[in-house]
Amino acid sequence: MPLRELQYPTEPYNKVNRLKDRADYSLETIHQIVNSCPMLHVSFQPPDSPFPAVLPMIGQMGSFSRPSADVGDVLDLYLHGYVSSRMMNMARNNPDASQQQQQQQAQAQEGRGLPITICASHLDGLVLALTPNSHSYNYRSAVLFGHAMPVTDAAEKLYAMELITNGVAPQRWQNTRVPPNAAEMQSTSVLRVRIASGSAKIRSGGPHDERGDMEDGALLDRVWTGVVPVYSVMGEPVAGEYNRVGQVPAYLEGWRREANKDAEEHAREAAGGGSAAKS
Amino acid sequence: MPLRELQYPTEPYNKVNRLKDRADYSLETIHQIVNSCPMLHVSFQPPDSPFPAVLPMIGQMGSFSRPSADVGDVLDLYLHGYVSSRMMNMARNNPDASQQQQQQQAQAQEGRGLPITICASHLDGLVLALTPNSHSYNYRSAVLFGHAMPVTDAAEKLYAMELITNGVAPQRWQNTRVPPNAAEMQSTSVLRVRIASGSAKIRSGGPHDERGDMEDGALLDRVWTGVVPVYSVMGEPVAGEYNRVGQVPAYLEGWRREANKDAEEHAREAAGGGSAAKS
Repeated sequence: MPLRELQYPTEPYNKVNRLKDRADYSLETIHQIVNSCPMLHVSFQPPDSPFPAVLPMIGQMGSFSRPSADVGDVLDLYLHGYVSSRMMNMARNNPDASQQQQQQQAQAQEGRGLPITICASHLDGLVLALTPNSHSYNYRSAVLFGHAMPVTDAAEKLYAMELITNGVAPQRWQNTRVPPNAAEMQSTSVLRVRIASGSAKIRSGGPHDERGDMEDGALLDRVWTGVVPVYSVMGEPVAGEYNRVGQVPAYLEGWRREANKDAEEHAREAAGGGSAAKS
Repeated sequence: MPLRELQYPTEPYNKVNRLKDRADYSLETIHQIVNSCPMLHVSFQPPDSPFPAVLPMIGQMGSFSRPSADVGDVLDLYLHGYVSSRMMNMARNNPDASQQQQQQQAQAQEGRGLPITICASHLDGLVLALTPNSHSYNYRSAVLFGHAMPVTDAAEKLYAMELITNGVAPQRWQNTRVPPNAAEMQSTSVLRVRIASGSAKIRSGGPHDERGDMEDGALLDRVWTGVVPVYSVMGEPVAGEYNRVGQVPAYLEGWRREANKDAEEHAREAAGGGSAAKS
Protein backbone atom coordinates (compact mmCIF):
# COMPACT_ATOMS: atom_id res chain seq x y z
CA MET A 1 0.00 0.00 0.00
CA PRO A 2 1.45 3.39 -0.92
CA LEU A 3 1.88 5.85 1.94
CA ARG A 4 -0.83 8.06 0.52
CA GLU A 5 -3.64 7.16 -1.78
CA LEU A 6 -2.68 7.53 -5.44
CA GLN A 7 -5.11 9.08 -7.90
CA TYR A 8 -5.22 9.16 -11.67
CA PRO A 9 -4.87 12.62 -13.21
CA THR A 10 -8.05 14.17 -14.55
CA GLU A 11 -7.68 14.66 -18.27
CA PRO A 12 -10.37 15.84 -20.67
CA TYR A 13 -10.99 12.22 -21.73
CA ASN A 14 -11.41 10.70 -18.25
CA LYS A 15 -13.00 13.53 -16.28
CA VAL A 16 -16.48 12.62 -15.08
CA ASN A 17 -18.74 15.54 -16.00
CA ARG A 18 -22.10 14.12 -15.06
CA LEU A 19 -23.08 13.11 -11.48
CA LYS A 20 -19.62 14.04 -10.23
CA ASP A 21 -20.34 12.85 -6.70
CA ARG A 22 -20.26 9.32 -8.06
CA ALA A 23 -16.75 9.78 -9.49
CA ASP A 24 -13.61 8.26 -8.00
CA TYR A 25 -10.08 8.60 -9.37
CA SER A 26 -8.23 6.48 -6.78
CA LEU A 27 -6.00 3.79 -8.26
CA GLU A 28 -7.05 1.31 -5.58
CA THR A 29 -10.78 1.69 -6.26
CA ILE A 30 -10.34 1.54 -10.03
CA HIS A 31 -7.91 -1.40 -10.00
CA GLN A 32 -10.14 -3.39 -7.66
CA ILE A 33 -13.14 -2.94 -9.96
CA VAL A 34 -11.02 -4.05 -12.94
CA ASN A 35 -9.44 -7.06 -11.19
CA SER A 36 -12.80 -8.37 -9.94
CA CYS A 37 -14.46 -8.09 -13.35
CA PRO A 38 -14.44 -11.41 -15.23
CA MET A 39 -15.01 -9.73 -18.61
CA LEU A 40 -13.50 -6.42 -19.61
CA HIS A 41 -14.74 -4.47 -22.61
CA VAL A 42 -11.83 -3.24 -24.71
CA SER A 43 -12.20 -0.66 -27.45
CA PHE A 44 -9.90 0.71 -30.14
CA GLN A 45 -10.44 2.47 -33.44
CA PRO A 46 -9.40 0.34 -36.43
CA PRO A 47 -8.15 2.47 -39.34
CA ASP A 48 -10.31 0.75 -41.93
CA SER A 49 -13.65 0.87 -40.11
CA PRO A 50 -16.14 3.67 -39.52
CA PHE A 51 -16.90 2.06 -36.13
CA PRO A 52 -14.72 1.47 -33.06
CA ALA A 53 -14.03 -2.18 -32.25
CA VAL A 54 -15.32 -3.44 -28.88
CA LEU A 55 -14.22 -6.83 -27.61
CA PRO A 56 -14.87 -8.70 -24.37
CA MET A 57 -11.49 -9.75 -22.99
CA ILE A 58 -9.90 -11.20 -19.85
CA GLY A 59 -7.33 -9.13 -17.98
CA GLN A 60 -5.63 -8.40 -14.68
CA MET A 61 -3.54 -5.56 -13.33
CA GLY A 62 -0.01 -6.23 -12.15
CA SER A 63 3.60 -5.11 -12.15
CA PHE A 64 6.19 -7.36 -13.76
CA SER A 65 9.04 -5.22 -12.44
CA ARG A 66 7.58 -5.27 -8.91
CA PRO A 67 5.30 -8.32 -8.57
CA SER A 68 4.63 -7.59 -4.88
CA ALA A 69 3.02 -4.23 -5.75
CA ASP A 70 -0.27 -3.47 -4.00
CA VAL A 71 -3.53 -3.08 -5.91
CA GLY A 72 -3.38 0.67 -5.16
CA ASP A 73 0.08 1.09 -6.73
CA VAL A 74 0.92 2.10 -10.29
CA LEU A 75 0.22 -1.03 -12.32
CA ASP A 76 -0.02 -2.20 -15.91
CA LEU A 77 -3.03 -4.00 -17.30
CA TYR A 78 -2.34 -7.36 -18.92
CA LEU A 79 -4.91 -8.53 -21.45
CA HIS A 80 -5.24 -12.01 -22.87
CA GLY A 81 -6.52 -12.55 -26.35
CA TYR A 82 -6.29 -12.68 -30.04
CA VAL A 83 -6.93 -8.99 -30.63
CA SER A 84 -3.24 -8.24 -30.65
CA SER A 85 -2.78 -9.42 -34.22
CA ARG A 86 -5.56 -7.10 -35.38
CA MET A 87 -4.11 -4.28 -33.33
CA MET A 88 -0.68 -4.96 -34.73
CA ASN A 89 -2.07 -4.63 -38.23
CA MET A 90 -3.04 -1.13 -37.23
CA ALA A 91 0.56 -0.29 -36.50
CA ARG A 92 1.58 -0.98 -40.08
CA ASN A 93 1.76 1.80 -42.60
CA ASN A 94 -1.59 2.54 -44.17
CA PRO A 95 -1.64 5.26 -46.85
CA ASP A 96 -5.42 5.68 -46.51
CA ALA A 97 -5.26 6.36 -42.79
CA SER A 98 -6.56 9.64 -41.47
CA GLN A 99 -4.31 12.11 -39.72
CA GLN A 100 -5.40 10.76 -36.32
CA GLN A 101 -4.76 7.18 -37.39
CA GLN A 102 -1.35 8.10 -38.73
CA GLN A 103 -0.61 9.63 -35.33
CA GLN A 104 -1.76 6.37 -33.69
CA GLN A 105 0.45 4.37 -36.02
CA ALA A 106 3.39 6.66 -35.41
CA GLN A 107 2.92 6.25 -31.64
CA ALA A 108 2.76 2.47 -32.00
CA GLN A 109 5.93 2.45 -34.09
CA GLU A 110 7.68 4.63 -31.54
CA GLY A 111 7.00 1.90 -29.04
CA ARG A 112 4.24 3.66 -27.10
CA GLY A 113 1.58 1.27 -28.30
CA LEU A 114 -1.89 1.77 -29.64
CA PRO A 115 -4.45 3.85 -27.74
CA ILE A 116 -7.13 1.64 -26.22
CA THR A 117 -9.89 2.05 -23.66
CA ILE A 118 -10.92 -0.61 -21.17
CA CYS A 119 -14.22 -0.63 -19.28
CA ALA A 120 -15.08 -2.86 -16.29
CA SER A 121 -18.65 -2.86 -14.99
CA HIS A 122 -20.46 -4.57 -12.13
CA LEU A 123 -24.23 -4.35 -11.80
CA ASP A 124 -25.17 -4.37 -8.10
CA GLY A 125 -28.90 -3.73 -8.15
CA LEU A 126 -32.04 -2.45 -9.83
CA VAL A 127 -33.17 0.77 -8.13
CA LEU A 128 -36.94 1.01 -8.49
CA ALA A 129 -38.43 4.44 -7.83
CA LEU A 130 -41.88 6.02 -8.04
CA THR A 131 -41.32 7.21 -11.61
CA PRO A 132 -39.41 5.64 -14.53
CA ASN A 133 -37.36 8.85 -14.67
CA SER A 134 -35.96 8.23 -11.17
CA HIS A 135 -35.11 4.58 -11.77
CA SER A 136 -31.44 3.76 -11.58
CA TYR A 137 -28.88 1.02 -11.14
CA ASN A 138 -26.51 0.38 -8.28
CA TYR A 139 -23.23 -0.26 -10.05
CA ARG A 140 -19.47 0.03 -9.99
CA SER A 141 -17.78 0.85 -13.26
CA ALA A 142 -14.21 1.77 -14.09
CA VAL A 143 -12.60 2.93 -17.28
CA LEU A 144 -8.88 2.89 -18.08
CA PHE A 145 -7.12 4.62 -20.97
CA GLY A 146 -3.71 3.45 -22.12
CA HIS A 147 -1.35 2.28 -24.81
CA ALA A 148 -1.21 -1.43 -25.65
CA MET A 149 1.82 -3.37 -26.83
CA PRO A 150 2.24 -7.13 -27.24
CA VAL A 151 4.42 -8.70 -24.56
CA THR A 152 7.43 -10.30 -26.27
CA ASP A 153 9.69 -11.06 -23.29
CA ALA A 154 9.14 -14.71 -22.28
CA ALA A 155 9.48 -14.11 -18.52
CA GLU A 156 7.01 -11.23 -18.59
CA LYS A 157 4.58 -13.27 -20.69
CA LEU A 158 4.77 -16.13 -18.21
CA TYR A 159 4.18 -13.68 -15.33
CA ALA A 160 1.12 -12.28 -17.12
CA MET A 161 -0.28 -15.73 -18.02
CA GLU A 162 -0.11 -16.81 -14.38
CA LEU A 163 -1.61 -13.49 -13.23
CA ILE A 164 -4.51 -13.78 -15.68
CA THR A 165 -5.17 -17.49 -15.00
CA ASN A 166 -5.24 -16.95 -11.25
CA GLY A 167 -7.47 -13.92 -11.84
CA VAL A 168 -10.07 -16.27 -13.33
CA ALA A 169 -9.74 -18.78 -10.45
CA PRO A 170 -7.18 -18.29 -7.64
CA GLN A 171 -4.43 -20.95 -7.47
CA ARG A 172 -5.57 -22.52 -10.73
CA TRP A 173 -2.18 -21.95 -12.42
CA GLN A 174 -0.17 -24.06 -9.97
CA ASN A 175 -2.85 -26.77 -10.03
CA THR A 176 -2.66 -27.42 -13.77
CA ARG A 177 0.07 -28.59 -16.17
CA VAL A 178 2.60 -25.73 -16.22
CA PRO A 179 4.75 -24.20 -17.51
CA PRO A 180 3.31 -23.82 -21.00
CA ASN A 181 5.31 -25.52 -23.74
CA ALA A 182 6.96 -23.64 -26.60
CA ALA A 183 3.94 -23.98 -28.89
CA GLU A 184 1.64 -22.59 -26.16
CA MET A 185 3.97 -19.68 -25.46
CA GLN A 186 4.01 -18.94 -29.18
CA SER A 187 0.26 -19.20 -29.74
CA THR A 188 -0.80 -17.16 -26.71
CA SER A 189 -0.96 -13.39 -27.09
CA VAL A 190 -0.68 -11.07 -24.13
CA LEU A 191 -0.98 -7.30 -24.33
CA ARG A 192 0.53 -4.94 -21.80
CA VAL A 193 -1.38 -1.69 -21.40
CA ARG A 194 0.52 1.25 -19.91
CA ILE A 195 -2.22 3.25 -18.20
CA ALA A 196 -2.42 6.96 -19.01
CA SER A 197 -5.43 7.65 -16.79
CA GLY A 198 -8.72 6.29 -15.56
CA SER A 199 -11.80 6.89 -13.49
CA ALA A 200 -14.49 5.01 -11.62
CA LYS A 201 -18.15 5.71 -11.10
CA ILE A 202 -20.08 4.11 -8.25
CA ARG A 203 -23.72 4.30 -7.23
CA SER A 204 -25.19 2.63 -4.17
CA GLY A 205 -28.21 3.09 -1.93
CA GLY A 206 -31.96 3.21 -2.29
CA PRO A 207 -34.17 5.16 -4.66
CA HIS A 208 -34.56 8.94 -4.66
CA ASP A 209 -37.65 10.62 -6.07
CA GLU A 210 -38.68 14.18 -6.81
CA ARG A 211 -40.49 16.07 -4.05
CA GLY A 212 -43.74 16.25 -6.01
CA ASP A 213 -43.98 12.48 -6.19
CA MET A 214 -42.84 11.95 -2.60
CA GLU A 215 -45.76 14.11 -1.43
CA ASP A 216 -48.30 12.08 -3.41
CA GLY A 217 -49.75 9.73 -0.80
CA ALA A 218 -51.83 7.74 -3.26
CA LEU A 219 -48.72 7.14 -5.36
CA LEU A 220 -46.71 6.04 -2.31
CA ASP A 221 -49.49 3.61 -1.42
CA ARG A 222 -49.51 2.14 -4.90
CA VAL A 223 -45.89 1.84 -6.09
CA TRP A 224 -43.33 -0.46 -4.43
CA THR A 225 -39.97 1.28 -4.18
CA GLY A 226 -36.64 -0.23 -3.27
CA VAL A 227 -33.72 -2.14 -4.66
CA VAL A 228 -33.49 -5.58 -6.19
CA PRO A 229 -29.89 -6.64 -5.42
CA VAL A 230 -28.11 -8.21 -8.40
CA TYR A 231 -25.00 -10.35 -8.13
CA SER A 232 -23.12 -13.03 -9.98
CA VAL A 233 -23.17 -16.59 -8.68
CA MET A 234 -20.89 -19.51 -9.45
CA GLY A 235 -23.05 -22.64 -9.42
CA GLU A 236 -22.23 -26.23 -8.53
CA PRO A 237 -19.25 -27.27 -10.72
CA VAL A 238 -20.04 -29.63 -13.60
CA ALA A 239 -17.31 -32.21 -14.23
CA GLY A 240 -16.09 -32.49 -17.82
CA GLU A 241 -16.18 -35.66 -19.91
CA TYR A 242 -12.61 -36.72 -19.21
CA ASN A 243 -12.44 -35.58 -15.58
CA ARG A 244 -11.11 -38.30 -13.27
CA VAL A 245 -10.83 -36.29 -10.04
CA GLY A 246 -13.78 -37.30 -7.87
CA GLN A 247 -14.05 -34.21 -5.70
CA VAL A 248 -13.84 -30.60 -6.71
CA PRO A 249 -10.54 -29.50 -5.12
CA ALA A 250 -10.69 -27.43 -1.93
CA TYR A 251 -8.92 -24.43 -3.44
CA LEU A 252 -11.75 -24.14 -6.00
CA GLU A 253 -14.65 -24.95 -3.68
CA GLY A 254 -13.43 -22.69 -0.89
CA TRP A 255 -12.97 -19.79 -3.28
CA ARG A 256 -16.32 -20.39 -5.03
CA ARG A 257 -18.29 -20.36 -1.78
CA GLU A 258 -16.44 -17.36 -0.40
CA ALA A 259 -16.85 -15.40 -3.63
CA ASN A 260 -20.57 -16.20 -3.81
CA LYS A 261 -21.05 -15.05 -0.22
CA ASP A 262 -19.08 -11.84 -0.81
CA ALA A 263 -21.00 -11.04 -4.01
CA GLU A 264 -24.38 -11.43 -2.32
CA GLU A 265 -23.31 -9.41 0.72
CA HIS A 266 -21.92 -6.63 -1.45
CA ALA A 267 -25.12 -6.30 -3.48
CA ARG A 268 -27.23 -6.33 -0.32
CA GLU A 269 -25.06 -3.71 1.38
CA ALA A 270 -25.17 -1.54 -1.74
CA ALA A 271 -28.97 -1.73 -1.60
CA GLY A 272 -28.79 0.25 1.63
CA GLY A 273 -30.49 0.55 4.95
CA GLY A 274 -33.96 -0.81 4.25
CA SER A 275 -34.95 -4.22 5.60
CA ALA A 276 -35.70 -7.11 3.27
CA ALA A 277 -39.26 -6.85 2.04
CA LYS A 278 -41.80 -9.60 2.49
CA SER A 279 -42.69 -11.19 -0.80
CA MET B 1 -41.30 -13.92 -36.71
CA PRO B 2 -40.08 -13.35 -40.26
CA LEU B 3 -40.75 -16.14 -42.76
CA ARG B 4 -37.06 -16.90 -43.00
CA GLU B 5 -34.30 -16.13 -40.54
CA LEU B 6 -32.73 -12.74 -41.17
CA GLN B 7 -28.97 -12.33 -40.96
CA TYR B 8 -26.76 -9.27 -40.72
CA PRO B 9 -24.43 -8.77 -43.68
CA THR B 10 -20.79 -9.65 -43.09
CA GLU B 11 -18.73 -6.51 -43.50
CA PRO B 12 -15.02 -6.17 -42.81
CA TYR B 13 -15.78 -4.62 -39.41
CA ASN B 14 -18.20 -7.28 -38.12
CA LYS B 15 -16.84 -10.46 -39.71
CA VAL B 16 -15.63 -12.94 -37.09
CA ASN B 17 -12.17 -14.06 -38.19
CA ARG B 18 -11.15 -16.11 -35.20
CA LEU B 19 -12.97 -19.28 -34.05
CA LYS B 20 -15.55 -18.85 -36.83
CA ASP B 21 -17.59 -21.83 -35.65
CA ARG B 22 -18.64 -19.69 -32.68
CA ALA B 23 -19.96 -16.91 -34.95
CA ASP B 24 -23.63 -16.19 -35.52
CA TYR B 25 -25.08 -13.41 -37.68
CA SER B 26 -28.80 -14.07 -37.11
CA LEU B 27 -30.78 -11.04 -36.06
CA GLU B 28 -32.79 -13.09 -33.57
CA THR B 29 -29.73 -14.46 -31.77
CA ILE B 30 -28.00 -11.09 -31.66
CA HIS B 31 -31.08 -9.13 -30.58
CA GLN B 32 -31.89 -11.64 -27.83
CA ILE B 33 -28.38 -11.31 -26.40
CA VAL B 34 -28.69 -7.50 -26.46
CA ASN B 35 -32.19 -7.38 -24.96
CA SER B 36 -31.28 -9.69 -22.09
CA CYS B 37 -28.12 -7.76 -21.19
CA PRO B 38 -28.72 -5.29 -18.32
CA MET B 39 -25.63 -3.22 -19.19
CA LEU B 40 -24.46 -2.56 -22.72
CA HIS B 41 -21.00 -1.21 -23.46
CA VAL B 42 -21.16 1.62 -25.97
CA SER B 43 -18.11 3.01 -27.74
CA PHE B 44 -17.49 5.99 -29.98
CA GLN B 45 -14.41 8.00 -30.94
CA PRO B 46 -14.49 11.57 -29.57
CA PRO B 47 -12.66 14.02 -31.87
CA ASP B 48 -10.61 15.54 -29.06
CA SER B 49 -9.33 12.34 -27.41
CA PRO B 50 -6.63 9.88 -28.40
CA PHE B 51 -8.79 7.15 -26.84
CA PRO B 52 -12.24 5.84 -27.76
CA ALA B 53 -14.95 6.49 -25.17
CA VAL B 54 -16.60 3.41 -23.61
CA LEU B 55 -19.72 3.82 -21.49
CA PRO B 56 -22.01 1.31 -19.78
CA MET B 57 -25.56 2.12 -20.87
CA ILE B 58 -29.07 0.70 -20.75
CA GLY B 59 -30.81 -0.16 -24.00
CA GLN B 60 -33.43 -2.25 -25.76
CA MET B 61 -34.20 -3.10 -29.36
CA GLY B 62 -37.55 -2.16 -30.83
CA SER B 63 -39.41 -0.70 -33.76
CA PHE B 64 -41.38 2.51 -33.26
CA SER B 65 -42.95 2.24 -36.71
CA ARG B 66 -43.98 -1.39 -36.06
CA PRO B 67 -44.14 -1.96 -32.30
CA SER B 68 -45.38 -5.54 -32.76
CA ALA B 69 -42.16 -6.52 -34.58
CA ASP B 70 -40.58 -9.78 -33.47
CA VAL B 71 -37.13 -9.91 -31.86
CA GLY B 72 -35.80 -11.47 -35.09
CA ASP B 73 -37.04 -8.58 -37.27
CA VAL B 74 -35.11 -5.51 -38.39
CA LEU B 75 -35.07 -3.32 -35.27
CA ASP B 76 -33.48 -0.14 -33.94
CA LEU B 77 -31.56 0.00 -30.69
CA TYR B 78 -32.78 2.60 -28.19
CA LEU B 79 -30.22 3.76 -25.64
CA HIS B 80 -30.90 5.71 -22.48
CA GLY B 81 -28.35 8.10 -21.12
CA TYR B 82 -26.51 11.32 -20.96
CA VAL B 83 -23.97 10.49 -23.63
CA SER B 84 -26.08 12.09 -26.30
CA SER B 85 -24.95 15.58 -25.37
CA ARG B 86 -21.32 14.56 -25.70
CA MET B 87 -22.05 12.83 -28.94
CA MET B 88 -23.92 15.86 -30.18
CA ASN B 89 -20.88 17.99 -29.48
CA MET B 90 -19.07 15.73 -31.91
CA ALA B 91 -21.48 16.62 -34.65
CA ARG B 92 -20.59 20.30 -34.43
CA ASN B 93 -17.97 21.80 -36.68
CA ASN B 94 -14.49 21.27 -35.34
CA PRO B 95 -11.65 22.71 -37.42
CA ASP B 96 -9.10 20.48 -35.67
CA ALA B 97 -10.90 17.27 -36.59
CA SER B 98 -9.12 14.66 -38.65
CA GLN B 99 -10.41 13.63 -42.05
CA GLN B 100 -12.21 10.67 -40.52
CA GLN B 101 -13.80 12.84 -37.82
CA GLN B 102 -14.91 15.33 -40.44
CA GLN B 103 -16.53 12.47 -42.30
CA GLN B 104 -18.26 11.44 -39.07
CA GLN B 105 -19.44 14.98 -38.52
CA ALA B 106 -20.65 15.26 -42.10
CA GLN B 107 -22.60 12.03 -41.68
CA ALA B 108 -24.13 13.26 -38.47
CA GLN B 109 -25.14 16.52 -40.08
CA GLU B 110 -26.66 14.66 -43.02
CA GLY B 111 -28.92 12.99 -40.51
CA ARG B 112 -27.25 9.58 -40.53
CA GLY B 113 -25.94 9.93 -36.98
CA LEU B 114 -22.62 9.21 -35.39
CA PRO B 115 -20.94 5.82 -35.79
CA ILE B 116 -21.09 3.86 -32.54
CA THR B 117 -20.45 0.26 -31.50
CA ILE B 118 -22.46 -1.58 -28.86
CA CYS B 119 -21.32 -4.75 -27.13
CA ALA B 120 -23.51 -7.06 -25.00
CA SER B 121 -21.83 -9.88 -23.08
CA HIS B 122 -23.06 -12.67 -20.83
CA LEU B 123 -20.61 -14.86 -18.93
CA ASP B 124 -22.06 -18.39 -18.61
CA GLY B 125 -19.21 -20.33 -17.05
CA LEU B 126 -15.54 -20.84 -16.28
CA VAL B 127 -14.15 -23.68 -18.40
CA LEU B 128 -11.31 -25.30 -16.48
CA ALA B 129 -8.99 -27.50 -18.54
CA LEU B 130 -5.77 -29.44 -17.89
CA THR B 131 -3.57 -26.51 -18.97
CA PRO B 132 -4.00 -22.76 -18.56
CA ASN B 133 -3.73 -22.48 -22.35
CA SER B 134 -6.91 -24.55 -22.84
CA HIS B 135 -8.95 -22.65 -20.25
CA SER B 136 -11.91 -20.77 -21.63
CA TYR B 137 -15.24 -19.15 -20.81
CA ASN B 138 -18.71 -20.17 -21.78
CA TYR B 139 -20.25 -16.93 -22.97
CA ARG B 140 -22.66 -15.20 -25.31
CA SER B 141 -21.56 -11.88 -26.73
CA ALA B 142 -23.04 -9.69 -29.43
CA VAL B 143 -21.77 -6.58 -31.10
CA LEU B 144 -23.82 -4.08 -33.09
CA PHE B 145 -22.54 -1.29 -35.32
CA GLY B 146 -24.75 1.64 -36.20
CA HIS B 147 -25.43 5.34 -36.38
CA ALA B 148 -26.87 7.11 -33.34
CA MET B 149 -29.21 10.09 -33.34
CA PRO B 150 -31.09 11.67 -30.45
CA VAL B 151 -34.82 10.96 -30.51
CA THR B 152 -36.68 14.26 -30.76
CA ASP B 153 -40.22 13.12 -31.56
CA ALA B 154 -42.21 13.00 -28.29
CA ALA B 155 -44.23 9.91 -29.21
CA GLU B 156 -41.13 7.95 -30.22
CA LYS B 157 -39.33 9.07 -27.04
CA LEU B 158 -42.25 7.87 -24.93
CA TYR B 159 -42.25 4.54 -26.81
CA ALA B 160 -38.52 4.13 -26.16
CA MET B 161 -38.76 5.11 -22.48
CA GLU B 162 -41.44 2.49 -21.89
CA LEU B 163 -39.44 -0.09 -23.87
CA ILE B 164 -36.28 0.58 -21.86
CA THR B 165 -38.03 0.70 -18.46
CA ASN B 166 -39.81 -2.59 -19.11
CA GLY B 167 -36.49 -4.01 -20.34
CA VAL B 168 -35.09 -3.41 -16.84
CA ALA B 169 -38.14 -4.96 -15.12
CA PRO B 170 -41.17 -6.15 -17.13
CA GLN B 171 -44.43 -4.25 -16.46
CA ARG B 172 -42.61 -1.68 -14.33
CA TRP B 173 -43.65 1.22 -16.58
CA GLN B 174 -47.42 0.75 -16.12
CA ASN B 175 -46.92 0.21 -12.38
CA THR B 176 -45.27 3.59 -11.72
CA ARG B 177 -46.35 7.23 -12.10
CA VAL B 178 -46.62 7.74 -15.87
CA PRO B 179 -46.59 9.47 -18.27
CA PRO B 180 -43.47 11.54 -17.57
CA ASN B 181 -44.13 15.23 -17.11
CA ALA B 182 -42.72 17.92 -19.39
CA ALA B 183 -39.57 18.40 -17.31
CA GLU B 184 -38.88 14.66 -17.33
CA MET B 185 -39.41 14.41 -21.08
CA GLN B 186 -37.00 17.32 -21.49
CA SER B 187 -34.29 16.01 -19.17
CA THR B 188 -34.26 12.43 -20.46
CA SER B 189 -32.10 11.67 -23.48
CA VAL B 190 -32.81 8.73 -25.73
CA LEU B 191 -30.64 7.74 -28.67
CA ARG B 192 -31.92 5.73 -31.62
CA VAL B 193 -29.25 3.59 -33.28
CA ARG B 194 -29.90 2.48 -36.86
CA ILE B 195 -28.03 -0.81 -37.09
CA ALA B 196 -25.62 -1.24 -40.00
CA SER B 197 -24.52 -4.72 -39.04
CA GLY B 198 -23.67 -7.00 -36.14
CA SER B 199 -22.48 -10.40 -35.06
CA ALA B 200 -22.64 -12.75 -32.11
CA LYS B 201 -20.13 -15.18 -30.70
CA ILE B 202 -21.21 -18.03 -28.46
CA ARG B 203 -19.25 -20.73 -26.65
CA SER B 204 -20.78 -23.54 -24.63
CA GLY B 205 -19.77 -27.00 -23.49
CA GLY B 206 -17.02 -28.56 -21.46
CA PRO B 207 -13.24 -28.21 -21.69
CA HIS B 208 -11.11 -29.42 -24.59
CA ASP B 209 -7.44 -30.21 -24.18
CA GLU B 210 -4.60 -31.10 -26.52
CA ARG B 211 -4.01 -34.76 -27.25
CA GLY B 212 -0.65 -34.79 -25.46
CA ASP B 213 -2.23 -33.75 -22.19
CA MET B 214 -5.24 -36.04 -22.61
CA GLU B 215 -2.87 -39.01 -22.86
CA ASP B 216 -1.07 -38.07 -19.63
CA GLY B 217 -2.71 -40.32 -17.05
CA ALA B 218 -0.94 -38.76 -14.06
CA LEU B 219 -2.14 -35.34 -15.17
CA LEU B 220 -5.73 -36.58 -15.59
CA ASP B 221 -5.57 -38.03 -12.08
CA ARG B 222 -4.34 -34.76 -10.63
CA VAL B 223 -6.25 -31.88 -12.33
CA TRP B 224 -10.02 -31.40 -11.95
CA THR B 225 -11.54 -30.43 -15.28
CA GLY B 226 -15.00 -29.15 -15.92
CA VAL B 227 -17.15 -26.04 -15.91
CA VAL B 228 -18.13 -23.71 -13.08
CA PRO B 229 -21.49 -22.32 -14.26
CA VAL B 230 -21.80 -18.54 -13.77
CA TYR B 231 -25.10 -16.67 -13.77
CA SER B 232 -26.64 -13.49 -12.48
CA VAL B 233 -29.08 -13.63 -9.58
CA MET B 234 -31.62 -11.09 -8.36
CA GLY B 235 -31.71 -11.32 -4.59
CA GLU B 236 -34.52 -10.69 -2.11
CA PRO B 237 -35.80 -7.13 -2.78
CA VAL B 238 -34.83 -4.50 -0.20
CA ALA B 239 -37.58 -1.94 0.45
CA GLY B 240 -36.54 1.72 0.21
CA GLU B 241 -36.87 4.27 2.99
CA TYR B 242 -40.18 5.71 1.85
CA ASN B 243 -41.73 2.49 0.59
CA ARG B 244 -45.26 1.97 1.98
CA VAL B 245 -46.23 -1.11 -0.03
CA GLY B 246 -45.97 -4.09 2.31
CA GLN B 247 -45.48 -6.84 -0.23
CA VAL B 248 -43.29 -6.87 -3.29
CA PRO B 249 -45.85 -6.90 -6.14
CA ALA B 250 -46.53 -10.16 -7.95
CA TYR B 251 -45.38 -8.84 -11.35
CA LEU B 252 -41.92 -8.19 -9.83
CA GLU B 253 -41.65 -11.32 -7.71
CA GLY B 254 -42.93 -13.64 -10.42
CA TRP B 255 -40.47 -12.21 -12.92
CA ARG B 256 -37.56 -12.26 -10.47
CA ARG B 257 -38.02 -15.92 -9.60
CA GLU B 258 -38.57 -16.97 -13.19
CA ALA B 259 -35.52 -15.03 -14.40
CA ASN B 260 -33.33 -16.50 -11.64
CA LYS B 261 -34.45 -20.01 -12.56
CA ASP B 262 -33.85 -19.42 -16.27
CA ALA B 263 -30.40 -17.92 -15.66
CA GLU B 264 -29.27 -20.87 -13.56
CA GLU B 265 -30.69 -23.40 -16.01
CA HIS B 266 -29.04 -21.68 -18.96
CA ALA B 267 -25.60 -21.66 -17.32
CA ARG B 268 -25.95 -25.30 -16.32
CA GLU B 269 -27.08 -26.35 -19.80
CA ALA B 270 -24.20 -24.41 -21.35
CA ALA B 271 -21.82 -26.34 -19.07
CA GLY B 272 -22.78 -29.45 -21.02
CA GLY B 273 -23.38 -33.11 -20.53
CA GLY B 274 -21.32 -33.85 -17.44
CA SER B 275 -23.08 -34.54 -14.15
CA ALA B 276 -22.72 -32.23 -11.17
CA ALA B 277 -19.50 -32.99 -9.34
CA LYS B 278 -19.44 -33.92 -5.70
CA SER B 279 -17.82 -31.23 -3.64
